[in-house]
Amino acid sequence: MSSMTGKNIKISVFGQSHSQGIGIVIDGLPAGFEIDTDSLLSFMARRAPGQSKLTTTRTEADIPEIISGIADNKTCGAPLCAVIRNTNTRSKDYSNLKDCPRPSHADYAASVRYKGFNDIAGGGHFSGRLTAPLCFAGGVCIQILKSMNIEVKAHLYSVHGVFDTPFDPVNITDVNIGEKAFPVIDDEAGEKMQEEILKAKRSADSVGGIIECAVTGIEAGFGSPMFDGVENIIAKNIFGVPAVKGIEFGNGFKCASLFGSENNDPYTVRDGKIITETNNSGGITGGITTGMPIVFRVAMKPTPSIGQKQKSVSISEKCNQELIIHGRHDPCVAVRAVPAIEAVTAISILDIISEDYR
Amino acid sequence: MSSMTGKNIKISVFGQSHSQGIGIVIDGLPAGFEIDTDSLLSFMARRAPGQSKLTTTRTEADIPEIISGIADNKTCGAPLCAVIRNTNTRSKDYSNLKDCPRPSHADYAASVRYKGFNDIAGGGHFSGRLTAPLCFAGGVCIQILKSMNIEVKAHLYSVHGVFDTPFDPVNITDVNIGEKAFPVIDDEAGEKMQEEILKAKRSADSVGGIIECAVTGIEAGFGSPMFDGVENIIAKNIFGVPAVKGIEFGNGFKCASLFGSENNDPYTVRDGKIITETNNSGGITGGITTGMPIVFRVAMKPTPSIGQKQKSVSISEKCNQELIIHGRHDPCVAVRAVPAIEAVTAISILDIISEDYR
Amino acid sequence: MSSMTGKNIKISVFGQSHSQGIGIVIDGLPAGFEIDTDSLLSFMARRAPGQSKLTTTRTEADIPEIISGIADNKTCGAPLCAVIRNTNTRSKDYSNLKDCPRPSHADYAASVRYKGFNDIAGGGHFSGRLTAPLCFAGGVCIQILKSMNIEVKAHLYSVHGVFDTPFDPVNITDVNIGEKAFPVIDDEAGEKMQEEILKAKRSADSVGGIIECAVTGIEAGFGSPMFDGVENIIAKNIFGVPAVKGIEFGNGFKCASLFGSENNDPYTVRDGKIITETNNSGGITGGITTGMPIVFRVAMKPTPSIGQKQKSVSISEKCNQELIIHGRHDPCVAVRAVPAIEAVTAISILDIISEDYR
Amino acid sequence: MSSMTGKNIKISVFGQSHSQGIGIVIDGLPAGFEIDTDSLLSFMARRAPGQSKLTTTRTEADIPEIISGIADNKTCGAPLCAVIRNTNTRSKDYSNLKDCPRPSHADYAASVRYKGFNDIAGGGHFSGRLTAPLCFAGGVCIQILKSMNIEVKAHLYSVHGVFDTPFDPVNITDVNIGEKAFPVIDDEAGEKMQEEILKAKRSADSVGGIIECAVTGIEAGFGSPMFDGVENIIAKNIFGVPAVKGIEFGNGFKCASLFGSENNDPYTVRDGKIITETNNSGGITGGITTGMPIVFRVAMKPTPSIGQKQKSVSISEKCNQELIIHGRHDPCVAVRAVPAIEAVTAISILDIISEDYR
Repeated sequence: MSSMTGKNIKISVFGQSHSQGIGIVIDGLPAGFEIDTDSLLSFMARRAPGQSKLTTTRTEADIPEIISGIADNKTCGAPLCAVIRNTNTRSKDYSNLKDCPRPSHADYAASVRYKGFNDIAGGGHFSGRLTAPLCFAGGVCIQILKSMNIEVKAHLYSVHGVFDTPFDPVNITDVNIGEKAFPVIDDEAGEKMQEEILKAKRSADSVGGIIECAVTGIEAGFGSPMFDGVENIIAKNIFGVPAVKGIEFGNGFKCASLFGSENNDPYTVRDGKIITETNNSGGITGGITTGMPIVFRVAMKPTPSIGQKQKSVSISEKCNQELIIHGRHDPCVAVRAVPAIEAVTAISILDIISEDYR
Repeated sequence: MSSMTGKNIKISVFGQSHSQGIGIVIDGLPAGFEIDTDSLLSFMARRAPGQSKLTTTRTEADIPEIISGIADNKTCGAPLCAVIRNTNTRSKDYSNLKDCPRPSHADYAASVRYKGFNDIAGGGHFSGRLTAPLCFAGGVCIQILKSMNIEVKAHLYSVHGVFDTPFDPVNITDVNIGEKAFPVIDDEAGEKMQEEILKAKRSADSVGGIIECAVTGIEAGFGSPMFDGVENIIAKNIFGVPAVKGIEFGNGFKCASLFGSENNDPYTVRDGKIITETNNSGGITGGITTGMPIVFRVAMKPTPSIGQKQKSVSISEKCNQELIIHGRHDPCVAVRAVPAIEAVTAISILDIISEDYR
Repeated sequence: MSSMTGKNIKISVFGQSHSQGIGIVIDGLPAGFEIDTDSLLSFMARRAPGQSKLTTTRTEADIPEIISGIADNKTCGAPLCAVIRNTNTRSKDYSNLKDCPRPSHADYAASVRYKGFNDIAGGGHFSGRLTAPLCFAGGVCIQILKSMNIEVKAHLYSVHGVFDTPFDPVNITDVNIGEKAFPVIDDEAGEKMQEEILKAKRSADSVGGIIECAVTGIEAGFGSPMFDGVENIIAKNIFGVPAVKGIEFGNGFKCASLFGSENNDPYTVRDGKIITETNNSGGITGGITTGMPIVFRVAMKPTPSIGQKQKSVSISEKCNQELIIHGRHDPCVAVRAVPAIEAVTAISILDIISEDYR
Repeated sequence: MSSMTGKNIKISVFGQSHSQGIGIVIDGLPAGFEIDTDSLLSFMARRAPGQSKLTTTRTEADIPEIISGIADNKTCGAPLCAVIRNTNTRSKDYSNLKDCPRPSHADYAASVRYKGFNDIAGGGHFSGRLTAPLCFAGGVCIQILKSMNIEVKAHLYSVHGVFDTPFDPVNITDVNIGEKAFPVIDDEAGEKMQEEILKAKRSADSVGGIIECAVTGIEAGFGSPMFDGVENIIAKNIFGVPAVKGIEFGNGFKCASLFGSENNDPYTVRDGKIITETNNSGGITGGITTGMPIVFRVAMKPTPSIGQKQKSVSISEKCNQELIIHGRHDPCVAVRAVPAIEAVTAISILDIISEDYR
C-alpha cells in the first residue's frame, strides 16, 4: 500500500476509523507561513459528521493536534504532523463483517489483499473518516494558495439526477459556496437534492453524486506533458478519496459528442493578456495550465453501506449469506466529500506550483 | 516535466514528432521472457497512421529498433530500450505556429512553460505520435500479461453520439476486437461512427470519442488503498495519452443518478469462487481488485487540429490573429488511440501486479 | 525537504526536538505480524539518553504511542504510526542560537534554507533525537526480519583512534553486542573507548567514531544494478542519521591499497551452497547480494556541540562573535547511534527484500 | 532493477556492454540551453578506452547520437536522449562465464537475481561501459552548472597506496585537472601511480583507487535534512558507478579520530559573507550546503577482472572449478572513472539545485 503521495509537497496519511487516531504528515511546505487556526478548523468542520440529518449520527469533535512542523506559530520547514483522536467509536457494530463482506465496500478485496488481517472496524483505513486528515492538510494548503491569490472551490454538482448550475468555466465568481450549509450554487436545486437524499435515507438506501471543483488564479505554464501533467496529478490524488469512481476535466465525457470546432477554445487578447474565449479544456492543455480556471468534475458512488438486506457470502465457508449492515452512515457521501475534494485539489496544486519551472 | 512513470515497471518516454526518433525505456521487466516480435509489430501496426481514409496521411513504417534489454532473444533484466526513427516529417508545415498557438493544442501552455523553446514541429513531445513507443512497451507488457492469463482489450465505445455495445462487465468474452479494422463490438455501430468521422473530415472538422477498456483474468487482492490504488495508477498513466480528458471506472459518472441498492454489487459463490453478480464497481473497491474484470472508459477530445479558420493570437505581439492549420491530422484521434489505451493499461497492470503483496 | 524515504517499505519521519512530539509513519509492512512490544521497547531503550555518564543528561521516557496500523494486536496493512512525546525540554538553552550558529551544526545552513524560520530549539528537526522514531520503525523491521532469519547487528568499531575487533565478514557469530551496556565486541577496547569519551567530556570536548554493521541470513539475489542497489539504498538512508559523514562496504577505502588478486573473493562450494572464501565485497556485487553477510562501516563526526568557547558569527549583523553552547549533549554521538544504524539498516533491508524479484 | 534516478533532473540509463547500443534519457533539463558539442565530446573522451597503455585495448569511438530533446540547437524541455552504438565487441570472450562466475564481479549475484537470463557478455548492464552515457548526461549538466558558475572537478587521489595532494577544501583553485592526460594535482605522484598500475598490469593483476571530487560555487541553503540531503543524493547516485565501495564527505572516516574542537568549522565573516575557516564538513551540514565547496572522496575497488588463474565454481553443477578470464580490461578502473564521478556529481547537483526552495 501507499498512503503517501506527492513530489514537492508530500503527504503521508495514517489511521483507521477505530484506531487511536488518524492523522497526516505534510512535508515540503514553505517555511514562515502562519496558519490561521480558526479558518482551518471551520474548513475542517465542513466535512465533520453529525451536523444535520443528511449525515451520519456519529459525532466527533475532530480537533487536530499539531505534533510538529511549527515554531513561533509559523511553519518551520520541518514536516507538519497533525493527529486527530478517534473517540466516538462503536466497534461492535462491525464484528460480523470480518467474514461477511459488505457489497461494494473494500472489505472483501482488502481481506484478500491483507490475508484477513485488515482492520474491518468502521472501514479501517478505507473509511471516509480518513478525509479528515486530508482536510487538515488541504486546509493548510488552501491558505497558502490563497496568499498567492489562487483559490480552490467546489460545489455539489449533481445528486441522484438533480443538477446544480455548473461553474461558468471562464468567469468563476466567488459565490462563497463553502460558507453555505449545503454546498450548491443554486439553492433551489440544493433543496431538491436534499429531498432526494432524505428520500433515500427513509428507504434505508443511499444516493451518489457529482462534485465540481475549480481552481482560479493559477497562471499559465504550470504542469508538464505526459505523466506529470496537472490532470495526471489531480486524478491520481482525487482517486485517493473514498467512493470516487470518475474524473473529467473541462468538457470531459461530453467531448465525445462534439466537433473539434465546438470543443476548441479560441484564443483572444483581453487587457493585454492571452486568454481563451471558452474554457472547454478545463484550464489544461498538454498537461499544462493555460491560465484559465482549472475545472473538473468528480463522480462519487452512492454510500455502499445501506440499511437494506443485501446478498453477501461467508469468506471462510465460501457460501452465500444475507447481510444487514448496522452502524451509522451518510446517505450521500458526496455531500461531505465537497471539502475533501477541495482539500486534495489544494494539496495537488501546491505540489504542482512548487516545482521549479525555471 | 516528467515523461517517466511507474514503480515496479518503470517507463521513460522520449522523442518529439520531428526529432531524430522517438522511443521508450522499460525498466523492471521480468528476465527470461521471449518477445514475439511479429505479434508486437502487428499490435503496433494498429495505431500506425496511413491505414485508411480515417487517419492522417502521414505514413511511417514505425519499426522499433531494440537497442538493449535482450540477450539470447530473451529479456535479460536490463532496461529494454526501443527507438523508432522519424522519417516522414514535413516541419515547414509548422513554421507559423511558434507564435500563433493552435486552439486547444499544448502550443501556448508549452510556450509559457518552456519560455518559447519548446519544439513546435508536429506537436513536438506533445504529439500523439508519442503513443508509438507507448504501444511498443505496452505490446510487450500485453504479451507478459497474456502468459499469466491476464488480457487487456479495448474498443471504441462512442464517437460523436454513436454508441457501440458496451462490454458486459461480468462476462467479457473474447470478441477479438483488436483484429478488426475498426475496433468496435457492434460493426453496424462502427459503420455509423465511420460515417460521422468522414462527415467531420469533409467539413474540415474533427470529432471526439470514448474508449472502453477491460482487463480480464486478474485475481482479487491487487492494488492498495488511497494513492496507490488500481484506479489511481491507471488514471495517472492514462492521462499521459494525448487528448484524454476523463476516465471513469465501473458505473462511473452514472453512479450519480443511482441508489446504493442499484449500484452495490451483491456477492455470491460460483464454482467455489467468490464473485459479484454485477460489476458496477468496475472490478475495483478501495483501490484493490475484486477478481471481477476491471472496466473503465476514457473520454477523448476531438482532434484540436482542424482545417477551418480559427481565432488565435500572436504570442509575441499580444494581438488577435486568424489561424489556418495545415499539416495532416486524424479527424478522430480516438480511433488510433484504442491500442494506446490498451498499451498504457497493460503497463499499469503489470506494474501493479509486480508489487510484492506478501 | 523530504523526511520520507523508501519504495516498498516507506517511512515518514516528523517532529522537532522541542515540538509536541516526534514520530514516524511506516507504510507497506506485511499484515498479520505481531509486534513484541517488550522487545521493541528494550531496543528503543538502547538509544535513549540518560543511561550513563557517557550520554546527555536529558532524560525522557520515550515511550511510543501507537496511533494506527494495528488491529487485534497485529499489523493490519494500514500505515503504522507512532508518536513519542517531548517532555523534558528546556528551550531557553537555545534562545541565543537563532542568530549565532553553532559550528558544524545545521543551524546556519538551515537558516538560509528556511529563511530564518527553522526551529532552532534542541536542533529542531535536525536533532539526533529524531533517531528515536527511526529506532521505533527499525525495531519493528528487525523483528520482521528476524522471523525470516535475517539479523542486523552493529557495534562501535572505533572511537578516537581506539579500535574494536572487526566483524569476521565470513562468519559473523551472535555475540549479542546489543545486550551489552557498551556495544563493542572486545570489552577491553570498549573500556579504552569510554576513557577517551570521558576524557573528551572533561575537557568540554567530544569525539567521533565508526560503527560497523552487518546483516546476516540474507540470500543471494536481492538488490539491483545502478541506482537501486543495496549499497545505494543503505547509503541513501544511513546519511539520514545525523552526524554520519561516510560509509564503506566490505573493504571500502582499503580497496585503494590492494591488488585485485587480494581483494577478489574466490567462489567455492560448501555444503552444496555457493559461497565466497573471503567477503571483501561486503556481501554485495553489482548492487546485488551475494548471499554472504552484508558488512559496512559508518563514520560519525564528533558531536558538534562542545562546551568550549567557539568562533561564530551574527547572521543578522554579518560580524564575528564568540559562542558558548549551553544545553546537554553526548560527548560521542556514535555510542547511542549504534541502534539507530541497526534500525535504518533494518528498514532498508526490509524495503529491499520486499521487492518482487520474480 | 532500476537504472533510473533523480527527482527534478531524472535520468534513465539503458544498454549492455554488447547490446546494439547504450544510452541515457535525461528528463527535466531547463529549456533553451545550447549544448557545446565539442566540449561535450572532449569530456566524454576523457573516459573513453584505448587512450593509453593504462586502459583496456577495446577501442570505440563512442560518439553519442542525440535522438531527441533538442530543437533549433537548444534543449526544448522534452527528454534528451542519446544513444551510443556498441561496435567493437567480442562476445565469444565471455561464453564460458555464464556458468563460471568471475570473482567479485556481479556475475553470480546477477545470475541468481535474473534466474540465469542476465546478459553476461562484457558484463552486460553491469559493465563499466555504462559510464559512457552517464558521462554524456553529466557532461551536459556540467555545462549547465558552469553557466551558473558552479564547477565540478575530480582527481585521482590515491592508487595502491600512492597519494596525490588533496584538494584544499577551503580554496579550490582551478588546476585544470581535467585537461591532463593523467588526472592528478601532483604530477610526480601521478607518475608513481602509473608505475603501480603498470606493475599490476605486468603481473596480470589490478589495483584500486580513491577519487576526490569537489563542487565549487554552490551557495548555502541547497539540500534538505534526513533523506533528501546533499550527501544522501550524491551517495545514492555515486554508488551507481560500477566498482564504487565507499564514499565520505569532508573529514569522513578521519572524523573518528578527532576531537569536536578539531573537527568543527568555525564561522567567520569575509568580504561581508559568512564562511567557515576550515571545511571539515565538506560543505554540508544537516544535509544542506553551507556555501563552502562540497568535497568528498570515493573508494573504488581494483578491477575484478584479472589475468591470473582464480577459484570459481560451476553454478549449474555446484562444484569448484578454476577460471582464467580473457577479454580486455583496465588494470585500474579508478583512472577512467574520474570523469564518471564528475558526471554523476553534476547530475546530482543539478537535480538538487533544481528544487524549488522558495
